[in-house]
Amino acid sequence: MKLATLKNQSRDGQLVVVSRDLTRAIPVPDIAKTLQEALDHWADCQPKLQDYYEKLNAGKMSHALNFHEQSIASPLPRSYQWADGSAYVNHVELIRKARGAEMPANFWTDPLMYQGGSDSFLGPWDNIPVADLEWGVDFESEVAVITNDVAMGINARDAAHSICLLMLVNDVSLRNLIPNELNKGFGFFQSKPSSAFSPVAVTPDELGEAWDGKKIHLPLVTHLNKQLFGSPNAGVDMTFDFPTLIAHAAKTRPLCAGTIIGSGTVSNTDRSKGSSCIAEKRMLEILNSGKPQTPFMQWGDQVRIEMFDMNNNSIFGAIKQTVKEA
Amino acid sequence: MKLATLKNQSRDGQLVVVSRDLTRAIPVPDIAKTLQEALDHWADCQPKLQDYYEKLNAGKMSHALNFHEQSIASPLPRSYQWADGSAYVNHVELIRKARGAEMPANFWTDPLMYQGGSDSFLGPWDNIPVADLEWGVDFESEVAVITNDVAMGINARDAAHSICLLMLVNDVSLRNLIPNELNKGFGFFQSKPSSAFSPVAVTPDELGEAWDGKKIHLPLVTHLNKQLFGSPNAGVDMTFDFPTLIAHAAKTRPLCAGTIIGSGTVSNTDRSKGSSCIAEKRMLEILNSGKPQTPFMQWGDQVRIEMFDMNNNSIFGAIKQTVKEA
Repeated sequence: MKLATLKNQSRDGQLVVVSRDLTRAIPVPDIAKTLQEALDHWADCQPKLQDYYEKLNAGKMSHALNFHEQSIASPLPRSYQWADGSAYVNHVELIRKARGAEMPANFWTDPLMYQGGSDSFLGPWDNIPVADLEWGVDFESEVAVITNDVAMGINARDAAHSICLLMLVNDVSLRNLIPNELNKGFGFFQSKPSSAFSPVAVTPDELGEAWDGKKIHLPLVTHLNKQLFGSPNAGVDMTFDFPTLIAHAAKTRPLCAGTIIGSGTVSNTDRSKGSSCIAEKRMLEILNSGKPQTPFMQWGDQVRIEMFDMNNNSIFGAIKQTVKEA
Repeated sequence: MKLATLKNQSRDGQLVVVSRDLTRAIPVPDIAKTLQEALDHWADCQPKLQDYYEKLNAGKMSHALNFHEQSIASPLPRSYQWADGSAYVNHVELIRKARGAEMPANFWTDPLMYQGGSDSFLGPWDNIPVADLEWGVDFESEVAVITNDVAMGINARDAAHSICLLMLVNDVSLRNLIPNELNKGFGFFQSKPSSAFSPVAVTPDELGEAWDGKKIHLPLVTHLNKQLFGSPNAGVDMTFDFPTLIAHAAKTRPLCAGTIIGSGTVSNTDRSKGSSCIAEKRMLEILNSGKPQTPFMQWGDQVRIEMFDMNNNSIFGAIKQTVKEA
């Protein structure tokens, strides 16, 4: 099934079940007012939501609303945890190579993950508000899961069962603020402003054979100003799959239902697939010609991120965001 | 006023107003079921809660409950953001000195802050569950604020007005997991398991003259296994005050009501005041004698963290936690 959150007067918006073709939606206040509330009681709510979904797809919900992806909130407008991995290690290796730094060997075996801010997500079509272009505005196209409760110390095999929903992410990054923050050693903070997620979150069964229980085997398509920027396959070159990332996050503490775990920038070693962020493209330019050519995002620049099934139907709806002066 | 959260069958517990002397409490479901709900509507809820508080202190609430700090949740059992500064820079300098590393000059002007996990806080008297003592279990005694909504790009002067509540923190740290995580450059993750907060959160007026709008000018008292470990003054040697830390956190994104901002380990350059974490004591031992003598926490070790007013009354109640095998 597909779930989304309508903007309303409340901080967490209104949960709706969305039809498979993304045209119709139905509020379900008798089940849960918000997606977090549904996740807090997932075992109870999931079958009830599924029932609505099937009726909606069958055209049996005469009072359904038209669904407009451009005016909604992220599925979780705020969450209790957003932890983002960097699971496409070839991307990390490339970025290090461009600045002449060796990548430690354990980066292939020990996942990179940072704790992100989760209190103020942008809607999928909201502008990206930035105060200063000198900060180096970039997008990062990613895939993510939302988990149920996860016990501390879980192994990857068991962690696979905690995945409730899948989404796309734009992990907005301020590239020129990163070096100072990494030098300080405490990780990203100001360099990672509010992220945005796809219009709908979907249960794994929506992906059919493209979901193997660990990875999504489909291209993640990114356009910058309506030009194709990249379409690497999210299932290729993902060194750490989602169950491994969840187990990494839960090594020393439990995870609360509604935890979002991201894949990091999707990247294939096959460079003909393009990139999922400007930083990677610039690194390739440096390696090719000695200097970067593609600028970071400017006022009015627009990024569009989406994923299509075998029949070319959008699965999650599109993230479509424009950089705007704050 | 003083607020706390009773454990119940829900994830966010039940908000109660607590009497100044920490003996009586009263649920306020007509105002807000949870502390997050009260913070989501603070301007509306705050005066109503204050009214209950005054009646409770005056003995006019005959149906009040006895308040037992040992059986409650942290004021926010989970929150949308927990960002912890490291505002006592002499502590940072000391730890670097012990390992022979220079501290960059900008550490005195640019706050250190990390994004913490906020989805699963421990109660103030809950055990600290740990799977492996080799991880090097340590406490960090800190003070913290809970903010209202904060606009992106706010300055420190305006940020001062966003402080709703104050608390104490035990920022549990796994010292031996830190070097690998810092080397990876993405900041703390597994090395920072669930934190715990004091039994009650208080409005700034509860501190009287000890709160100057920016810092708490009182000793933070830590006992390890009933022996005094340290009582540095939280208002002394705090290089970055709370409004500055809030403004730092909000430089590139807004903060949601209920955001918790921590001070980092409280530390005074006057070493006779003792320490607020074992790591600092070990560093002083290294500088004095070449090697550390105090071990990190063992099974059954207990830390107690509290703060007293001029009349020796506990302001926040005590954090009291014992390390237990998970």
